[in-house]
Amino acid sequence: MFDINQIRKDTPASQQLIHFNNAGASLNPSVVIQKVKDYLDLEAQIGGYEVERLHQNDIKAFYTEMARLIHAEPHNIAFATSCTDAYARALSSMPFKSGDVILTSDDDYASNQLCFLSLQNRVGVRVVRAKNFDNGDMDVADVERIIKTEHPSVVAITHIPTSSGKMQPVAEIGQLCRQYDVWYLVDACQSIGQMPIDVQSIGCDFLTATGRKFLRAPRGTGFLFVSDKALEAGFSPLYFDNHSGNWTGKDSYTMQASALRFELYERSLATVLGITEAVRYACAIGLDNIWAYNQDLAQYFRQELQNTEGVTLYDEGSQLCNIITFRMGHKPLEVIQSALNAARINHSVTMKKMAQIDFDRKGIDWALRFSPHYYNTKEEVDKVIEVLRAI
Amino acid sequence: MFDINQIRKDTPASQQLIHFNNAGASLNPSVVIQKVKDYLDLEAQIGGYEVERLHQNDIKAFYTEMARLIHAEPHNIAFATSCTDAYARALSSMPFKSGDVILTSDDDYASNQLCFLSLQNRVGVRVVRAKNFDNGDMDVADVERIIKTEHPSVVAITHIPTSSGKMQPVAEIGQLCRQYDVWYLVDACQSIGQMPIDVQSIGCDFLTATGRKFLRAPRGTGFLFVSDKALEAGFSPLYFDNHSGNWTGKDSYTMQASALRFELYERSLATVLGITEAVRYACAIGLDNIWAYNQDLAQYFRQELQNTEGVTLYDEGSQLCNIITFRMGHKPLEVIQSALNAARINHSVTMKKMAQIDFDRKGIDWALRFSPHYYNTKEEVDKVIEVLRAI
Repeated sequence: MFDINQIRKDTPASQQLIHFNNAGASLNPSVVIQKVKDYLDLEAQIGGYEVERLHQNDIKAFYTEMARLIHAEPHNIAFATSCTDAYARALSSMPFKSGDVILTSDDDYASNQLCFLSLQNRVGVRVVRAKNFDNGDMDVADVERIIKTEHPSVVAITHIPTSSGKMQPVAEIGQLCRQYDVWYLVDACQSIGQMPIDVQSIGCDFLTATGRKFLRAPRGTGFLFVSDKALEAGFSPLYFDNHSGNWTGKDSYTMQASALRFELYERSLATVLGITEAVRYACAIGLDNIWAYNQDLAQYFRQELQNTEGVTLYDEGSQLCNIITFRMGHKPLEVIQSALNAARINHSVTMKKMAQIDFDRKGIDWALRFSPHYYNTKEEVDKVIEVLRAI
Repeated sequence: MFDINQIRKDTPASQQLIHFNNAGASLNPSVVIQKVKDYLDLEAQIGGYEVERLHQNDIKAFYTEMARLIHAEPHNIAFATSCTDAYARALSSMPFKSGDVILTSDDDYASNQLCFLSLQNRVGVRVVRAKNFDNGDMDVADVERIIKTEHPSVVAITHIPTSSGKMQPVAEIGQLCRQYDVWYLVDACQSIGQMPIDVQSIGCDFLTATGRKFLRAPRGTGFLFVSDKALEAGFSPLYFDNHSGNWTGKDSYTMQASALRFELYERSLATVLGITEAVRYACAIGLDNIWAYNQDLAQYFRQELQNTEGVTLYDEGSQLCNIITFRMGHKPLEVIQSALNAARINHSVTMKKMAQIDFDRKGIDWALRFSPHYYNTKEEVDKVIEVLRAI
C-alpha cells in the first residue's frame, strides 16, 4: 500500500531536510536502523557467535526475502558488502585468460571499467564496448555483432549508469546472451529498490546490487545473484573461506552447492538483518507502486528543470529513470551547491572521472545529480526549483 | 591503566555470563557499540554520504589509530570487512603463475589453506608446508631450507593457529624472508588485541587481522597492513574500485599511492568508527598490560584443567597463548556442552575441518576451545572447572 504520509513518518529525516541523493545513499526507514541497533546490542549482551546461533532464522530470511525481491530462489543469493564486492566475486569466478573478450558499454560504472582494465593489464583480456546511438540508447544490434565476431567470455552491462539518467536494455541483451550462449553479468546497483527487478526476465547469470541506494538498507550491504546455470557450471570465486568451501583434507576441498560459495562467513550480521528489513519494507509498499510514483516524480522534476532558465539537462536515452543530471552553465558550481546546502537540499555532483566516456562525449567535466525516491514529493521538487531560480 | 573492575563495568555482559569465546567473537565494550549506533542514527538523520563528509576526521582516525596499534604509518593501513577479506585482497595482488610456490605451515588457518588450494587448482601454484618439531614448534630451519630450494613467491604464516594454543615464530621467519628477499604475509587474526603486535619486528610485507576477536570491535571489521616495500613494488589488488583507483580515460587508470588501493569505498562506516574506538579502548589499557594479564590467566586456566580428572589438553608448542584446547575423552561432547550452556559459559568447539592436518596428527576430530581475555577473571575459570568436575 502506498501511503506517502506514512512513508514520510517512517523516515523522520524527511521532515528536516530534502534528500535527493538516493543514488548516493538513501535515508533509511526507522525500522531498518532499529533492527541493526537491536542486533548490535544483542551481540554485546550475549556474544557474537552465540547470538548468531540463536538468530539463524533471521539470517536465513535475508536469502528468502532477497530471492522474493528479484524473482530468484534463496540458493541463488549470496550476501556481499557492496555491489563492487559482489562484482569482484563474480568476476573472480571467471577463468579469464589472455585474449578473452569482455563485452561492455561506454556507460558501465567506473569501478567496473577499472576491474575490466585491471584484467586487461594483468591477464591480457580485451575490453570491447558496444556502440550507443546518438540519442544515448545502446545499439543492441552492435552487441549482437560483437557477440558474433568477438565471442566474448562475458557480457557485462550496468543496468543504470551513474551519470546519465538512462536505463540500458538489459532484457534484450539477455535474450542475445541466451541465444548465443554467452555468460551475462548485470550490475543492478542503481536499479534495485527503484523499480521491479526480475532476474528471470533479464536472463542474467550474475546480478550484483548494493543496499544503501534505492533499497534504503544500511551501508556496507549488497548481494550477488548467481543463476542455476552458472552454479551448475561450477563457477566459484577465486578466494573463499571455510563458509563458502570445506577443507576436507590436507590438499582437498569442496565448495557449497549454492551461491553461498560466493560469500565469506564474517560480516556484520546486524547489517544483514538491516538489509532484510529494508527489502521487507520495500515489498510491503510494492515495487510496482514505488516505480509508478518514481516515474511520475522524475518526469515532474525534469519538466520543472526544463522550465528553469539556464538549466541544461544531460539525461539521454529513451528509457529514463530517477537519476537526473543537469548543469546551470552560467553559474559556478560552488554558488549552486552553497545555495542548495543552505536550504538543506541533499544532492550530489558527478565528476568526469566517474563517467569518462559519457562526459567526454557530452563535453562536460561535472553534472549536478538529483535522485528522487518514493519518499520525496513534488513540493520538495518545487523547493529545489525555487532555490535554483533564485541563484 | 589496568583496572579489572572498570573493565568489567565497561562490559555489562560480563556480569550476566562467562564469555570464554574471544577467539570466536568477543564481547564489545559499551563505548564501541554506542559509537556504531550513534553513527547509524546520524546516517538516517542526515544521509549516508552527507554524514561521511562531516565525519572525515573520525574516518581518518581509523588509519592513525590502527597504525599506532601495530607500529606502522597510516598510509600502510587499509580497511577490510574481515581477516579473510584482507587476506584475499593481499593474495590477489600477487601475480601468481603456474609453478610458483606458496610456503606455509601445517597450522595455517583453514580459510587460508582453502585460498592456497584454490590457487593450486586454478593457477597451478604449489603449496609447500614447513615441518613442525614433535613438540609442535615450527622448524624454522626447514623454512630456510624450503626458501633456499623452492624459492617461494610468498611465505604465508598464521601467527596463532585456530586450534592448538601455540604461537608461531613470526619474527624469526620474518628475518629469513628479509635475508632471502621473499614476500611475507602474516595472518594476525587471533593475535591482534590479545598481545602487542609490531609489524616492524615481525618484518612482514602484508599483515591481516579481524576486529571481532581479541580486539573487541564490531563484526564485519578488519584491516590489512601493506609495507612500504610492497607498495613501492606496485602490489595492487586484482579487483578494485574508484576509491582504490582512478579512471583517468577510456582505457587508462591510476592507483592510490597508499594502502587505500587495497580497500573498497563502500563499507559500513559505523563499524569503521566502532573498530577505531575498540583500538582506542585497547590502547588506553595498554597492550602490554593486556598481554601480561592474559598470560597469567591462561596459565592458571591450563593448570586448573590439568588438575581436572579426565581432561586432556591439546595445546602444544613452547610459546602458548590464550587459546586453550582440550577434551574430556570419557564424556560425550553434548553432555559437556549442555552443562556449560546451563551455567551460561560461552565457549566453542573446534571441528576437524578447521584443522585438518593438526587434528589428523593428534588423532582427534574435535576439541573444546576456551579463549579467555583480559575482562575474564580467575573466579570465572574456577566456575568452569567446577562445572567440568561436576559432569
